[in-house]
Amino acid sequence: MFKKRTNAKEAKELFLNSFQPFLKIENLPIEECDGRIIAENINAGINVPHYRRAAMDGFAVRASDTLGAGTGSPVILRLSDNIESGTCMRVHTGSPMPQGADAVVMMEDTVLNEDKVEIFSQIHPFKNVGEIGEDVRKGEIILNEGRMLRPCDIAVLASLGTGKIKVFKKPLVVIIPTGEELVPRNKKNLEEGDVYETNGLMSAMYIRKWGGIPQLLDIVTDSPEKIKEAIISNLDADMVITSGGTSVGKRDYVPAVVGSMGKLLVHGVGISPGKPTALGIINNKPVICMPGYPVAGIVALFYFGKSAFRKLGRIPDEPERIVRAVLSEKIAGRTGYVTYSRVKIDNGRAIPLATMGAGILSSVSKADGFVIIPENIEGRNAGEEVEVVLIE
Amino acid sequence: MFKKRTNAKEAKELFLNSFQPFLKIENLPIEECDGRIIAENINAGINVPHYRRAAMDGFAVRASDTLGAGTGSPVILRLSDNIESGTCMRVHTGSPMPQGADAVVMMEDTVLNEDKVEIFSQIHPFKNVGEIGEDVRKGEIILNEGRMLRPCDIAVLASLGTGKIKVFKKPLVVIIPTGEELVPRNKKNLEEGDVYETNGLMSAMYIRKWGGIPQLLDIVTDSPEKIKEAIISNLDADMVITSGGTSVGKRDYVPAVVGSMGKLLVHGVGISPGKPTALGIINNKPVICMPGYPVAGIVALFYFGKSAFRKLGRIPDEPERIVRAVLSEKIAGRTGYVTYSRVKIDNGRAIPLATMGAGILSSVSKADGFVIIPENIEGRNAGEEVEVVLIE
Repeated sequence: MFKKRTNAKEAKELFLNSFQPFLKIENLPIEECDGRIIAENINAGINVPHYRRAAMDGFAVRASDTLGAGTGSPVILRLSDNIESGTCMRVHTGSPMPQGADAVVMMEDTVLNEDKVEIFSQIHPFKNVGEIGEDVRKGEIILNEGRMLRPCDIAVLASLGTGKIKVFKKPLVVIIPTGEELVPRNKKNLEEGDVYETNGLMSAMYIRKWGGIPQLLDIVTDSPEKIKEAIISNLDADMVITSGGTSVGKRDYVPAVVGSMGKLLVHGVGISPGKPTALGIINNKPVICMPGYPVAGIVALFYFGKSAFRKLGRIPDEPERIVRAVLSEKIAGRTGYVTYSRVKIDNGRAIPLATMGAGILSSVSKADGFVIIPENIEGRNAGEEVEVVLIE
Repeated sequence: MFKKRTNAKEAKELFLNSFQPFLKIENLPIEECDGRIIAENINAGINVPHYRRAAMDGFAVRASDTLGAGTGSPVILRLSDNIESGTCMRVHTGSPMPQGADAVVMMEDTVLNEDKVEIFSQIHPFKNVGEIGEDVRKGEIILNEGRMLRPCDIAVLASLGTGKIKVFKKPLVVIIPTGEELVPRNKKNLEEGDVYETNGLMSAMYIRKWGGIPQLLDIVTDSPEKIKEAIISNLDADMVITSGGTSVGKRDYVPAVVGSMGKLLVHGVGISPGKPTALGIINNKPVICMPGYPVAGIVALFYFGKSAFRKLGRIPDEPERIVRAVLSEKIAGRTGYVTYSRVKIDNGRAIPLATMGAGILSSVSKADGFVIIPENIEGRNAGEEVEVVLIE
């Protein structure tokens, strides 16, 4: 099975097509909805503004009274509590327009002398007046189902006096670190063979960053029964990520366990590092089996995990943060593999760190980003300008 | 004062140079440190790995024993609990290398028959062996003060068994919405002149998104005393954002209050919308006075607020998320102003929404991003490819 390497893009498509976005909805106060996905079309319950308002500080007038006013030739109007021909009234940005007034002369274009106002600018009707509903019209759909909310969108909801809205829940992702060699971070006095668990913790933090709720389990040893047990007791989660046990060794049980519980879609993919990745479905839920090698694990997480998580949670794709830089030396692709090459960016130059193996976690931390080489490209040459996808 | 418009970039430089990054530090468990800034150089307390380990599943051997092995001509070694010439031992990725062995033959290059192992590949010493400290060397500085932590960096900390680290606190930003017209979102039955508060809420959510702790105060009316009181009672915050009351109207007291309490650096800046922005310093803390007009407010927040917040919190700049698109119609710049033009992106085209005024909050929500036109450029033409900075 593993020897059959599946093309990276095909593996991703097969995986993404094998499950549906989830449907869980919750009702939340709008101030908690930054980054959340709306689960309903939202109609405006009121007009914004709901009254005719001044759009500037100045004087409300009948526009026709300003006819002929100019810098050297003011028209003079009288301050009054009623607007009629020849009168005006002080207004502030946002204050209701007085009955009878149809325009506002900006403060800057006026001089006030006791109860007389000199108007130095001729204006047309509706100038500096905000009409009812000019921002949002009552009944209008202001935000469609599926939109990801930004603070500025939530501000629009606030402008309507909205309290709570329906949004999709954050996907719950259970993360299962496996491996006999792993020990928890609070173990002191390491013995030979002990390795602190890192991949599970890292995956949990990426899931949280991407907008999910990670549930990081205790380390599970290399036992098919224990792995199965850990998955079964967490099938209320929306997605499962395992780490480790995906290679071809005697202790690599994870893909087989996934296959026995659901469907193993792919084992062995054309990404480098990351070949031992397995992808499957259990109870219609996506299962990603990350290789235990840390760099391979992170690449699998970025390539498959992020896309799957976003589909599941209905989170729209967003462009990566990219920096363009000039390669300091050649990097080689690997035929048949999408190659993730770690680089450091220094002064506009991208310096490859890829000579370090996939087991060297610190090489990712030293890297600013990846140069991603498609499978049909031999590599990139020194001096070539490349796109560096920043590691988030 | 206000009539003196300050060039946008100069205003930003003046502002950023008038305060220092803050110094508050806290000690946090590493799993809470995603996005945080390290406040110490971190030295590795152990080697990673701390023992000589197998880097592959396979058989530990003396490399010299594999001399001459090839696909058609295996060397045969005997399974044993001791490594000596002619013997080998089963190892898993990560397991300690047996004494006497200096290389690992990958499982794929072997065939096991009872206690005999056929080796089909000649390997050199150190092949597939992880040396002590090859990932992280004890005593090495693995992360420097000032680095922003990503999950992959935290994984490196985890690989060392790190529990807690010193990071800079999240800046506390007090946000003061001002304006007689403003009403809280829970008010039902709006009266003429009532406007739901939105700018303060929006600013609070952006501050949280950027990594700060927002403290959104209740609405303060247009009174110099009340505004002063609100600022004074919140000077334990690291930064102050006010909204509203920055124009030239009778009720626009905010910049004067800032000036009376500290130093008003700038009032009136060359950004559009956003001209009535004021910037100041009170007790060495940055104070941003956002215009009350929602679009002007958000532009001021993005242009000045984000940079100031990042300097304060020592958060490194990161490139914006940018999409390139072809303008569907001409947009005009405004001489002397950095112009933020709202656009919607549709199928590779950037469609300007900028005909809507700065009071139209929903126009920001309808926009995907801004085309930012420098002050010395007349505008952008239809058909031109532009960079759209996505609104986060």
